[in-house]
Amino acid sequence: MTQLHRPALTGIALCLSLVPAHAARAAPPQGEGVAWDIVADLTTEIGPRLAGSPREAAARDWAVVRLKALGFQNVRVEPFTIAGWVRGAESAELTGPYPQRLHITALGNSAPTPVGGLTAPVVYFASLDALRAAPAGSLAGKIAYIDHAFVASQDGSGYGPFGQARRQGPAIGASKGALAVVIRSIGTDHNRDPHTGGTNFPEGTKAIPAGAVSGPDADLIARIAGRGQAMTIHLVLEGHAVGELPSGNVLAELPGRDPSLAPVLLACHLDSWDLGTGAIDDGAGCGIITAAALNVAKHGQPLRTIRLLWAGSEEVGVFGGAAYAKAHASEPHALAMESDFGADRVWRVSFNLAAANKPLAERIAAALAPLGIPVNAAKAGGGADIGEIAKASGAAVIDLDQDGTRYFDLHHTPDDTLDKVDPAQLAQNVEAWTRVLAIVANETGPISGAAQ
Amino acid sequence: MTQLHRPALTGIALCLSLVPAHAARAAPPQGEGVAWDIVADLTTEIGPRLAGSPREAAARDWAVVRLKALGFQNVRVEPFTIAGWVRGAESAELTGPYPQRLHITALGNSAPTPVGGLTAPVVYFASLDALRAAPAGSLAGKIAYIDHAFVASQDGSGYGPFGQARRQGPAIGASKGALAVVIRSIGTDHNRDPHTGGTNFPEGTKAIPAGAVSGPDADLIARIAGRGQAMTIHLVLEGHAVGELPSGNVLAELPGRDPSLAPVLLACHLDSWDLGTGAIDDGAGCGIITAAALNVAKHGQPLRTIRLLWAGSEEVGVFGGAAYAKAHASEPHALAMESDFGADRVWRVSFNLAAANKPLAERIAAALAPLGIPVNAAKAGGGADIGEIAKASGAAVIDLDQDGTRYFDLHHTPDDTLDKVDPAQLAQNVEAWTRVLAIVANETGPISGAAQ
Repeated sequence: MTQLHRPALTGIALCLSLVPAHAARAAPPQGEGVAWDIVADLTTEIGPRLAGSPREAAARDWAVVRLKALGFQNVRVEPFTIAGWVRGAESAELTGPYPQRLHITALGNSAPTPVGGLTAPVVYFASLDALRAAPAGSLAGKIAYIDHAFVASQDGSGYGPFGQARRQGPAIGASKGALAVVIRSIGTDHNRDPHTGGTNFPEGTKAIPAGAVSGPDADLIARIAGRGQAMTIHLVLEGHAVGELPSGNVLAELPGRDPSLAPVLLACHLDSWDLGTGAIDDGAGCGIITAAALNVAKHGQPLRTIRLLWAGSEEVGVFGGAAYAKAHASEPHALAMESDFGADRVWRVSFNLAAANKPLAERIAAALAPLGIPVNAAKAGGGADIGEIAKASGAAVIDLDQDGTRYFDLHHTPDDTLDKVDPAQLAQNVEAWTRVLAIVANETGPISGAAQ
Repeated sequence: MTQLHRPALTGIALCLSLVPAHAARAAPPQGEGVAWDIVADLTTEIGPRLAGSPREAAARDWAVVRLKALGFQNVRVEPFTIAGWVRGAESAELTGPYPQRLHITALGNSAPTPVGGLTAPVVYFASLDALRAAPAGSLAGKIAYIDHAFVASQDGSGYGPFGQARRQGPAIGASKGALAVVIRSIGTDHNRDPHTGGTNFPEGTKAIPAGAVSGPDADLIARIAGRGQAMTIHLVLEGHAVGELPSGNVLAELPGRDPSLAPVLLACHLDSWDLGTGAIDDGAGCGIITAAALNVAKHGQPLRTIRLLWAGSEEVGVFGGAAYAKAHASEPHALAMESDFGADRVWRVSFNLAAANKPLAERIAAALAPLGIPVNAAKAGGGADIGEIAKASGAAVIDLDQDGTRYFDLHHTPDDTLDKVDPAQLAQNVEAWTRVLAIVANETGPISGAAQ
């Protein structure tokens, strides 16, 4: 419809004329404090910051300035290089049986389509396992299309198994001769914005063009497949590898009173996929860990050093976490924690602590109980950027599990923007992190993870 | 985050291997029946169908085949021409103070930017009235940016007043010398998909480039404006007018038993904006009115002829409604009804009936009461496509008001796709329409609208 023929609320319109031309509009939801300011300013002043890009470098410069201004010490960049990939033009059209534009985005590490794109028949697979079962060579000259399940859940547990369609699907398609692989986005929303994310072409596998279409476009393809009709797609995906690119980790510390005690490592990642502005993935995480560290320091210098790792190039292969582990594996680490699952509330705590640290776990659980946060029976898994250092150093790991119900609506899409951060839930994260950190950063006894 | 380090549900993954390669995925929500089939097939087989385009023509051909197959009579196209407009390449970037891509779409009737686009300073207006208050000539060499309020409501009443920023803003900006006008999308969502829609450049006003940015992009601009920082935007909007284009209305009838009685007109529109597939705007409307007409006919030929108007070119200026009125103004019309507000449930009925038809209104209210649908105290406003014929013929108007709470999340965006149609609510619409139509199409006495 163009316009409802209902009485216009002219009274309201007239009231608005009192607003001066340059005054900000009735403000969008706003937060306050260190965590909010970090995610708001990072997404406003830097925005998208793809691993290895000039904008990621700008984000490192921004981070150094901000962390120094907040009073952190030993603020520095630890540079490393990555296997670079850049996005190019991208579009797709269903050319048969019905001409319809498809909303597509290239997956990280996708090879480029030929000049002018490629047009090929589609072979529809209802799941990654169906693709796995396709005979060798059966996809020569074809575009393999992979559908898959994935529904939203609080713990986000569908992402592991169903995300394999993105991580492994293109290489499997390539191994069977496919010209290109297109997948249903690894997401739980119904928007027209496709979800990007890295795919992997192992040594010996030829990289091919690989992209994801949005949920509604995937539904269209599924409907036509369900009718048994043949499909043809025209594909333009110009993203391509570009050799080595510079990246780096930003580190910052609040030195502890007792340098003989192993430090506590808190991690987030500074890079983001290029489609959105990296608000929930992972500007919010950097805000949360930083605010919690400062909150603890407000009550006096902690016993243990608190080290922040704002990792670079997480999204494209956890390069920052690997570089950190390589540089710091020989140093003792008492505990590692990571915030990289959005900005929604902490609903559960998970531990990976040595048996001797049971009393410590109980004190932490008691501190979180007033927030309604129970203890998970399963062991903490940690996160991508702390996985390697925790393993190498034997550090304990504590996860403050966040509510992931809407995380995969937004993950790796243009919709990852500041308005998705709920200030109240962000503040709840900071409070939970502060409570945990106040205990562990002042723990005098040894802290370590459970034996592997 | 790239991957949660949690145990993968390999059992579920293995089960999926039993699904054959070409079988459809666990089906997206599906409906059944005439209304569902119309909206599903129209969005699948035709998709976007911009007024005046070859796809709108394809939709007319599709409609004629479908309506004949459903048993309608006198199925025909009544052609007319429109002032055509086509979309072109479109992009925008905030170039200062922070480089960030903006998600933008051109408004219908936008003039094109020069080759290579244009770059200009931004003058931020918090509302349309603030722009109205700007001095003559003050926008020379500038891009005027219009922010505005708009929140979701059940009756959609914000669209009238706040939509004026789109309808009138560009012409007002042009009259003050602006190079271009950019507005916050007229929408209530937080997706990165901007909302298109028509704007008007009255006779004597020079058309200028005009576009809408998505909500999150508008929030970014508002944040920067709130800081008092100057902004510059680079704008490419290649959409442009193309002279006369062919369009047409599709008409179909279920002839009544008594040709002396004035017919009942049921309207929807067949064209859609080009960004989405026109599921809720207005494929669903065509499905609802058509299914209701057939339902009534199942119980025997009605007294009055039921005429369907699947109007063309509604979105770009209600050309179809005007063409229908011009062609049929001299014919009697008892009642006109329109379905063009999505596919969500009917929550209220509104009447514009002559005082003598009070008993008729009471019978209709009684028929709707079991569905929980109350009577609106205010008079029915009708819809765009029936407005002119109702006025010309003095026909009664009945509105089955639909729940618009999420309508403006999707309206005129790429997200207007089949998955947004809830089969249960679509069926409730058909039931409500059937109940009303069964009464009015068999009413022996005169039916007319209230005196103007």
